[in-house]
This record gives sequence, C-alpha cells and structure tokens, in this order.
Amino acid sequence: MKEIDIPHLEALALGAAILGSGGGGAPSYNLLITKRMIEERGPIPLKQISELTEDELVVPLAFMGAPLVALEKIPSGREPAAVIDELERLIGRRPTYLMPAEIGGANAFTPLWAALILKIPVLDGDLIGRAFPELQMSTCTLAGHPPNPAVLSDALGNVVVINSNDPFTVERIARQVTVAMGSRACVALYAMDAHQARVCVVPGTITQAIAIGTTLLEARKRKENPALAIAREHDGRVLATGMIADVNHSVSGGFLKGMATIVNSDHEKIFLHYQNEYLIAQCENEILASTPDILMLVEQEKGTPITSATLQYGQRVVLLAFPAPQVWTTPSALELVGPKVFGYEKES
Amino acid sequence: MKEIDIPHLEALALGAAILGSGGGGAPSYNLLITKRMIEERGPIPLKQISELTEDELVVPLAFMGAPLVALEKIPSGREPAAVIDELERLIGRRPTYLMPAEIGGANAFTPLWAALILKIPVLDGDLIGRAFPELQMSTCTLAGHPPNPAVLSDALGNVVVINSNDPFTVERIARQVTVAMGSRACVALYAMDAHQARVCVVPGTITQAIAIGTTLLEARKRKENPALAIAREHDGRVLATGMIADVNHSVSGGFLKGMATIVNSDHEKIFLHYQNEYLIAQCENEILASTPDILMLVEQEKGTPITSATLQYGQRVVLLAFPAPQVWTTPSALELVGPKVFGYEKES
Repeated sequence: MKEIDIPHLEALALGAAILGSGGGGAPSYNLLITKRMIEERGPIPLKQISELTEDELVVPLAFMGAPLVALEKIPSGREPAAVIDELERLIGRRPTYLMPAEIGGANAFTPLWAALILKIPVLDGDLIGRAFPELQMSTCTLAGHPPNPAVLSDALGNVVVINSNDPFTVERIARQVTVAMGSRACVALYAMDAHQARVCVVPGTITQAIAIGTTLLEARKRKENPALAIAREHDGRVLATGMIADVNHSVSGGFLKGMATIVNSDHEKIFLHYQNEYLIAQCENEILASTPDILMLVEQEKGTPITSATLQYGQRVVLLAFPAPQVWTTPSALELVGPKVFGYEKES
Repeated sequence: MKEIDIPHLEALALGAAILGSGGGGAPSYNLLITKRMIEERGPIPLKQISELTEDELVVPLAFMGAPLVALEKIPSGREPAAVIDELERLIGRRPTYLMPAEIGGANAFTPLWAALILKIPVLDGDLIGRAFPELQMSTCTLAGHPPNPAVLSDALGNVVVINSNDPFTVERIARQVTVAMGSRACVALYAMDAHQARVCVVPGTITQAIAIGTTLLEARKRKENPALAIAREHDGRVLATGMIADVNHSVSGGFLKGMATIVNSDHEKIFLHYQNEYLIAQCENEILASTPDILMLVEQEKGTPITSATLQYGQRVVLLAFPAPQVWTTPSALELVGPKVFGYEKES
C-alpha cells in the first residue's frame, strides 16, 4: 500500500477497533474528519519502515484523555500543528513522517488527518501494535528510547513540553496536564530517527488494521459470519459465542474498570475483565486468554466491534483472542503490560 | 541595602511571614538553607529597580504546591538551576536578576539561595507585595504581561514548559503539573525586561520585609509589645487582641479553608476567614478588613507570626491589618484578588 484513500477508511476503523482490544476510543469522528480532509486534499502517502533512510525523523502522534470526553469534545484541528511546530522548534528539525503512537481505536486516525494538515507523509506502524492506556506501555520503554521532549496541546493551542527521561514520569505529568486541558490533548513523544524506528516501531500495523477490517467487510458481503472469517484469516481464536448477561463497571482512577459476563449455549459463564481494554477472559478458574493478547468482542451477525464503553446487557457477541504483538511476549514486556500490572494476580 | 547577609535573615523570615497574610508557607527551612549558602558563598547582591538598565532580564522565581507538603518534602537544590537553564535555552538569554514571585512567606527566600547557586544577583521587589495562592494573582495580569514561557521543575530535575498567554490557563495547568510532581515544584514565569519590570514589579518588598522583621526583633529586645510596634512603624492597625476560641477548617480544592474565632477581653467574637491566606476579619456584621488588605495574626508576647496552618485553640493573639499594596486597590485589581474571587459576597 502506497497511500491511504477514502475506500480504506471504513476497513481501517473496524480493524483499528479490533486491535484496540475494547479500548482506544471510538474512531467514528476521526473517520469523518479524515474522509473530509482526503476529499479536499487527496490521499495520504503511506511509507513502509523498509523505505526509511538514515536522515528521517519519525514522530508518533496521539490524542490522550478520557474516551467518554472525546465523544463530546472534538478536536479543533489546531492541536497537531501546535504540537509539531513546538517540537520542531525544540529539536530543530521538521518530522519527515508522522505515525500513530497506538494503532488501536481512534488514534489510528490521528496522524492521518494531521498529515494532511501538515503535509507530512505517514509511516505504516505504531509503538504498541494494539491499544494500551498509558504512555509508558510502549515498545520504546522496552528499547530504552526516551519519551522526551513530550509536547502536548489542547484545542485552544496552549502548549506544554515535558522533559523527563523516565516514561512513567512523563505519563504521570502528561495525564495531569491532559486533565487541566479538559481531559483531551494531542501529544507527540518518542520522536525517533531511522535507526531507533527500526528498533521501536511495530511495523505495518496500519495495513494490518485495514486488512482485518477488509476481511470483516467482505465476510458481510458474502453473508458469512464475520467473526469466524476474522479469526480464520488473522490468526485469531473464538473463545466464546453467547449473550452478555451482566455488565458491572465503574469509572475509577481515570479508567473504566469492570467485568462483563457472557453466557454461552451450554449455559457456561465466561467472565471478561477490563480496564478500558479487555484484559482477561476466564471460564470458571481457567484463564482463556489475557493481556498482552488482544481480546475483542464483536457482535454476532455483523461483526461490529463492541468496546468496553458500549457494552450492554443482551448483546449477542463473539469473544475473540488474537496473539499479542511479538514484542510483548518477553518476560520484561510482561512486567510492563502483563496482567499483574493491572492488578490481576494470575498469569495465563 | 546593597546585599543580603546572615544578620538580615531572621528579620526577613519574620517580615515575610507577616506580609504572607497567614499563607505563603513557613520560611524556616528556606532560612536555614540560605544561611548555610551565605556562609559558604558570601552575601547576596541586592539591586533596586532604579538601578535596572535597558538590557536587563528579570526572572521571578517561586515554589508552588501545598505548604503542608513543603514541611516534609524539602528542595533537592537542583530545581532552580533546572528551571533557569531551560528558560535560558527557550528565550536565548541568561537572567540578569532573580526576584521573588511573591514576597509573602517562604518564597521570599527562594530566589536568594537560587541566586547563590546560579551566581545571579537579586532584584528588591516581587509581583504581589504580599502572598496570594494562584499564579494569575499577580501585577502582571493587571499589566497584561504574559506568563509564558512558564518553566517548572521538581526535585529530580524533571522539567515542564507551559506556553499559554492566559495566566488563568497557566495556573490551571501548572497546578496539575505540581500535583504530578509530588505537590512541590519550582516555577519561573513572567520573565521581563527592564521596561516591563518598571510596570509590573512591586518595588522594595525584600527591604520592606526585613524592616518589618527588624521592628519586631527590636521591640522584643526593648521588652515592648512587638505587635504594637509593628502596627505603629508600618502603617498597621490593631483589629483585635484576644484568644483563639475556635478553629474550624478543612483542606478543600487544594486550599486550607476555614474560620478562626477570636474572643477579646470584652467577650466580643471576631471571625477570621481564610483560604491559606487570611482574607476577611468580621465582628458581628461589620467587616473589619478584607483582602487585598494584609491581615495577620501574631502571638501577643513575642509577636511571632501565626500562619493559618499553625492556628490552635488557646493561642493569645493580636490581629493586625496593613493596607494592601497600592497596585491592588483599583476596581480591576479587586476583580482579580478581592473577596468575591474567594467566594465571599460582601465587599469591605
């Protein structure tokens, strides 16, 4: 794929939602803004990591904040330019590529419409390969690549720069700044050269999301079960098919934390634990799958992704699991994003 | 006065506490650190605003955060250099003067020990003439002089830069950043050239604080009542003499909010309302004095200042009022720091 055009956007939204593992926010508004901007300015050039030359500067971009706020507080469109202009002033260089900081959910689209505003092409990849809720949950932390300078901007063009080598400190400060900015801020961080990008970037995840979404759309056309088609084509497993019999959650510590109960046709109960993202699926005392594996619920008939914020009693669902991106399978990666980090005792 | 030396420090601590109007934090640790540094490096050069030449750059400096936290979380000593180095990098110039952002309380000392570390002289003045709890409560807001770039650092050397022309936005973001930094951060903001300094600086407030403290110390030596001596020499009024009969307060929204009741020898009750700073003194329905006038409690015998955080039942006190610094007496100033801003209906 050499460019992203309007026909890719619906597939990207579906695929990014699935890679979002229940979190990452709903892409609907970002899809619309990107579609409108492609209509005005043409398709978005997409480059592969193999095409990077030594003098490139890749800048990951995302919105951070509360997904529920994002439904009502939409971007003004000034945020990416404010962030990238400040970053350029700080490091003395213009980025040659923008990239999603996370592919999962709405943030798959953030660098796309920013790229059209800023006239900078997009690199096909991200720093997670799915969605995770905090800035330090990134391949860069594993590689020891520092997040600074991290630049944030709100819808009014106010700009904050955070300089700390420690990604946990940057997360803590950036989270508070985001709250002060109305729980919604655009952030650029972990800017990297070609060498660092080859180490840190999970490659091809934009293409991967479009492929997953395309599988889903084509299965719909063929009247085939979309969930089964996605599982077959994308290395997934069907963990359960059933009905949401209970949803019990609350907003706590900035997260939507809770548990959904799925009852299957054998009247077995499957418990799905989540903190924004779906993290653990459990049947009786058996762990069926857990973070960093990608857990996702889709609606049975159409395969429409169901995020944790849109869970409802009575939904007929298929629970899918996909293997974690390779980078998250080492012991040190599990210390950063495994079940224990989220407060669950048992490892799968 | 051409320099600040060890014999000035006790008087400065007492005078700054009185100008703090009950807030601004206790200067005891800052006094010790400054004394130690003067012993090592000699006295601190002090300049008057009349001595400023056109090419000067004045940088106001303060610690912000919760005064209670400051009692246990002391500075590492790295904060001022981290802040000033970053500011220099951003604006391309080294400050020629440091200055207290607020003279009231512990912050009178912040630029003094920073000046010895950074080898930069101190300008005799500040941006408030007393203590106020929020960054926008500054003469710069009245003059339309912008706060940006505002630079913050914590004890570990992590640095945050806030770029917004709006001082209320800078306050909101900086407050959250300070929380993320452990409720204690060093901040430089409102950097100004000589022209701006002549408009914005409340001149001579370091000398003024030392003079008030000296009056108090000399009255003690002469066995005279220190409170009466301060009132006589520094344009103050004695509003009440009596005993603290009740203290009712709680920490709310980052402030210590409450009311102390003073009972005088005629058994009249005087109510002293505060939010960190003492803001309104009231007897029955009569307002005796209110912000921006400086209200202060001192202990009867020794004249020791009593801040809102150290109020206790049974203390024998004198309640003093001093006129507000001239700059706070206009209608637009009252809109920024008058009683209504703090939620009190009645104006004095």
